[in-house]
Amino acid sequence: MSQAQNQELLATLRQLGAATVYEAQGAKGALDHGMKPIDPTTRLAGPAFTVDCRPADNLMLHYAVQKAKPGDVLVVDAKGFMEAGPWGDVLTIQAMKLGIAGLVINGCVRDANLIIELGFPVFCRGLSIKGTAKNQPGRIDVPISIGDVLIQPGDMIVGDRDGLAVIAQDEVEATIASSLAREEKEAGQRKAIEEGALTADLLGLADTLRRVGLN
Amino acid sequence: MSQAQNQELLATLRQLGAATVYEAQGAKGALDHGMKPIDPTTRLAGPAFTVDCRPADNLMLHYAVQKAKPGDVLVVDAKGFMEAGPWGDVLTIQAMKLGIAGLVINGCVRDANLIIELGFPVFCRGLSIKGTAKNQPGRIDVPISIGDVLIQPGDMIVGDRDGLAVIAQDEVEATIASSLAREEKEAGQRKAIEEGALTADLLGLADTLRRVGLN
Amino acid sequence: MSQAQNQELLATLRQLGAATVYEAQGAKGALDHGMKPIDPTTRLAGPAFTVDCRPADNLMLHYAVQKAKPGDVLVVDAKGFMEAGPWGDVLTIQAMKLGIAGLVINGCVRDANLIIELGFPVFCRGLSIKGTAKNQPGRIDVPISIGDVLIQPGDMIVGDRDGLAVIAQDEVEATIASSLAREEKEAGQRKAIEEGALTADLLGLADTLRRVGLN
Amino acid sequence: MSQAQNQELLATLRQLGAATVYEAQGAKGALDHGMKPIDPTTRLAGPAFTVDCRPADNLMLHYAVQKAKPGDVLVVDAKGFMEAGPWGDVLTIQAMKLGIAGLVINGCVRDANLIIELGFPVFCRGLSIKGTAKNQPGRIDVPISIGDVLIQPGDMIVGDRDGLAVIAQDEVEATIASSLAREEKEAGQRKAIEEGALTADLLGLADTLRRVGLN
Amino acid sequence: MSQAQNQELLATLRQLGAATVYEAQGAKGALDHGMKPIDPTTRLAGPAFTVDCRPADNLMLHYAVQKAKPGDVLVVDAKGFMEAGPWGDVLTIQAMKLGIAGLVINGCVRDANLIIELGFPVFCRGLSIKGTAKNQPGRIDVPISIGDVLIQPGDMIVGDRDGLAVIAQDEVEATIASSLAREEKEAGQRKAIEEGALTADLLGLADTLRRVGLN
Amino acid sequence: MSQAQNQELLATLRQLGAATVYEAQGAKGALDHGMKPIDPTTRLAGPAFTVDCRPADNLMLHYAVQKAKPGDVLVVDAKGFMEAGPWGDVLTIQAMKLGIAGLVINGCVRDANLIIELGFPVFCRGLSIKGTAKNQPGRIDVPISIGDVLIQPGDMIVGDRDGLAVIAQDEVEATIASSLAREEKEAGQRKAIEEGALTADLLGLADTLRRVGLN
Repeated sequence: MSQAQNQELLATLRQLGAATVYEAQGAKGALDHGMKPIDPTTRLAGPAFTVDCRPADNLMLHYAVQKAKPGDVLVVDAKGFMEAGPWGDVLTIQAMKLGIAGLVINGCVRDANLIIELGFPVFCRGLSIKGTAKNQPGRIDVPISIGDVLIQPGDMIVGDRDGLAVIAQDEVEATIASSLAREEKEAGQRKAIEEGALTADLLGLADTLRRVGLN
Repeated sequence: MSQAQNQELLATLRQLGAATVYEAQGAKGALDHGMKPIDPTTRLAGPAFTVDCRPADNLMLHYAVQKAKPGDVLVVDAKGFMEAGPWGDVLTIQAMKLGIAGLVINGCVRDANLIIELGFPVFCRGLSIKGTAKNQPGRIDVPISIGDVLIQPGDMIVGDRDGLAVIAQDEVEATIASSLAREEKEAGQRKAIEEGALTADLLGLADTLRRVGLN
Repeated sequence: MSQAQNQELLATLRQLGAATVYEAQGAKGALDHGMKPIDPTTRLAGPAFTVDCRPADNLMLHYAVQKAKPGDVLVVDAKGFMEAGPWGDVLTIQAMKLGIAGLVINGCVRDANLIIELGFPVFCRGLSIKGTAKNQPGRIDVPISIGDVLIQPGDMIVGDRDGLAVIAQDEVEATIASSLAREEKEAGQRKAIEEGALTADLLGLADTLRRVGLN
Repeated sequence: MSQAQNQELLATLRQLGAATVYEAQGAKGALDHGMKPIDPTTRLAGPAFTVDCRPADNLMLHYAVQKAKPGDVLVVDAKGFMEAGPWGDVLTIQAMKLGIAGLVINGCVRDANLIIELGFPVFCRGLSIKGTAKNQPGRIDVPISIGDVLIQPGDMIVGDRDGLAVIAQDEVEATIASSLAREEKEAGQRKAIEEGALTADLLGLADTLRRVGLN
Repeated sequence: MSQAQNQELLATLRQLGAATVYEAQGAKGALDHGMKPIDPTTRLAGPAFTVDCRPADNLMLHYAVQKAKPGDVLVVDAKGFMEAGPWGDVLTIQAMKLGIAGLVINGCVRDANLIIELGFPVFCRGLSIKGTAKNQPGRIDVPISIGDVLIQPGDMIVGDRDGLAVIAQDEVEATIASSLAREEKEAGQRKAIEEGALTADLLGLADTLRRVGLN
Repeated sequence: MSQAQNQELLATLRQLGAATVYEAQGAKGALDHGMKPIDPTTRLAGPAFTVDCRPADNLMLHYAVQKAKPGDVLVVDAKGFMEAGPWGDVLTIQAMKLGIAGLVINGCVRDANLIIELGFPVFCRGLSIKGTAKNQPGRIDVPISIGDVLIQPGDMIVGDRDGLAVIAQDEVEATIASSLAREEKEAGQRKAIEEGALTADLLGLADTLRRVGLN
């Protein structure tokens, strides 16, 4: 794929958003509701560069930013610990300099004002100013789990105000195709609704409603 | 009541806000602190059209939008389940088309960007992209409970950034009257404070403070 | 210290922010991640006027606003109870009239729309419209604990979108000095990063990375 | 009803247990999963004597024990506050002396060792040694809500290790009848299972399984 | 492997316990701390028969008990929903009749008294009497995730009071070998401790302690 | 104080229990309701040997057991992280060998079966088998905070099924004296209750009840 094609693919994913790609690929790959952007207007898409680290320690994050490629999204399992902010201003500036597309971290961050001002996409569980050590080993480029979703290195991450969806690397194009089909179908439904149709009819729910005694 | 009178009543309730009507009716009818608008600038007032459904299933929501009247607020007990978003863009468009005034759901929603852009008032516990089935029976127009508050069909819902209050149908006018009296009294207090009075005196707390050993 | 000097000191602390002063004083004094401003753009600095009160009762708050000095930050342990909003519009107007700099409360508040519109800085755990009694005794000007941090009367409070840090009264000037040194050092790091340096080198992490088998 | 008949009715309810009566009355009246006995072997049945009090204050409990009748279960909404134990040894001894059948409290208790040793049935959210004031008003003999269930004075409470169910006063006898019928049916099912039957057949799930593509 | 060998292998795993096998296989495969046995004395080992179902619906459980083999452990993702108990007495009796070894469910169960009395091993998040529907499709024999751990059909489950560990099917024998080696090593450490050795020396922590400035 | 006197003092504190000493010293020093014994029959008393460590790392625990004195209670701030069990069988055996009286840890432990069998008192937030590193520095013998309570080295810890109370070192004897006085008074109240007195009268609540409109 050319770089231009890749940029277009990412732009399409950002526009589609997390809920659509989640549904389009068969209702799978959604991270839990606690993972949210620090700036609700954020839209993110990019391949995962995974990091498995220990709570309250960011040694691995300094290592990972060097190893990730431009366009990668750092996807970090910091073990869901809420009382530390292992990512802040310096790492943000470093990541942006190196072309990293964004951060998804199972934990908290800090320096949110600056991160938002710089426009760097960050999805996390909250904000904490509490510091981290730089002592602890970890791993990069390995499968990790966040919110009951297994994420392989290279999986595609799509995020917006609603949350995050993960697409397996070899399903990205199929998922985009089915997402666009879904969007087209929904556009038809919206038009029909505007013209007076009811969702129960559009979605073919009449039989089910009758079976449960409603009509 | 004429429709114009009704519109004015609803506008008054929206302006009064949840905290005032809660206090004015005797400190009752407040939903718990976890129920919040997805757009903090939202102000909502309207009679409840209640829906009792099962977690992670929105069959009843497609049914309820058909049965509710223009101006109704859908008040849905989705059992507080956080890992599903049974309300999204299509239902929002359907609801707006049918004149529904807003949604209060004990659970999550998705497509928040579009909902906010369209200006449809939604109060919920969070955002989740996870999908729902369309299989499960439920009931409409029955008493439901959210946040330890029993809500009868037709009860008046008032919501803003602070949260939600519920007014029994036959207490709406009395509650508005006492809310306005309360606002007037508070306006007097504000003026007095501006002129140097202290709240402890304005609220007559001197005796209590003395009893607990403070003065 | 002259009043002008004091104002400058407070302005400096507001600009430095919670994360920086927390780190600069040796990674201590951070309140837990659940304490956040109701308006994320808020920046607050001021000495703590402490209040120990009971859940769902604001008698002590009416008392405390009278006893605090202009510029003080009310720091209230309301026991983390989420289903009451013991601070609202009237107390906000009273506090602003008396020159109080802001509120930090281990609990909820209400009337958030008005508080934000008036620009009064409030840090809390959430919003609740549920009312409070005015019956219960408490104490002012005593050590209190919030989020595992002991706060002495007169300790300096610094807060922003990230959260809150507390500086011991006699460490304020030293903390500002080390914060400014830290900011200068970080400015150097940012410049170096812009010029191509890596954080792992700037922070001297090479040995640690080698010890844990990474390089 | 004679006292002997009443004792037999309560013994029957204790033996049936919370899950059975909940199902038998149409899957309603179950308190949330957080309300549990402090001694898991506890079995409780009795009419509710309701108490609405404020968090961390037990004045109303001292009042309520005087007003309840022998055999009553005190059902207390202490607002779910976890950092106070408004019920302890003295109230337990008082309640037992007065013939009160047990306590259900939306909050915590203390002196659990003694309460368990004395065999007084207590259902709550946890244990807290933190003390309470005796300052605050409240109400007895009024409808209250716990865990989204509205409880009327006189409603029948049934509790065991699994949790609590509430039966409307005028549905107790019908619920017992349908509970016994349900138990008889389940006894038949157990016997059939022992003889080799499968639950899917006994419960007539074949059609549903086929509809969802399983067989 | 003969059946006798298999029984011995399972007995060994039950005796080793979850913490030991977790450590022995390289500190992986531990379910989160919220998954616990309803009877703390329970010890469980067996291969996973996985079930992916929807919250508050147990149609798939009735299906799965028929499809699992004797000795299997049902491992069910019920989506962590706490306000339903999709497993109870009838399913327990059915499962025991069919030789199923135990249940691990991401959700709640009910009829705990009877389950404990019958000695059927159950690990879950809590107890709820709230009922379930029997309407919803799902899947068996597919990879599922609980507590950030991916579980493949056939993976070995080991559980006790501490919690649960999952061993990949083809690593069971290696994990047992390293577990036994670990136990032997720990027995040596215990003996050394009894004779006066210190854990810091036995575990070779002197260098690390010196590096962090302690000795 | 002779060793025999000290043993008697500790036995008295264990018998008094956490709730009594908390009340007797003026309703202060109670840890939050989440800190509980893993064996509910545990009773613990002893001076605190404090440890401040990082989440998911037990290097400091191996160091602390060497430095604590016989009879000390290790009181560890492990930052409330739930997904690691930094204390297990080896440390328990080491601690018992060295005469350490018990463990209070703001976090989880593992090997609960063995710890309970050995009778070593442990208070914590839960059980987790997840392992810890041995990399991270920390501090011993410093003030720490758990559950909003500041604990100084040497403070007396008292714990039982209800939870934990902390007594300042120089207030232990006074607290025991007032605890015994409180117990004597409560014994009188129990006797009076047995003879027909009401707690509202014994506790002098008549005035307060009248003030709030109850009698």
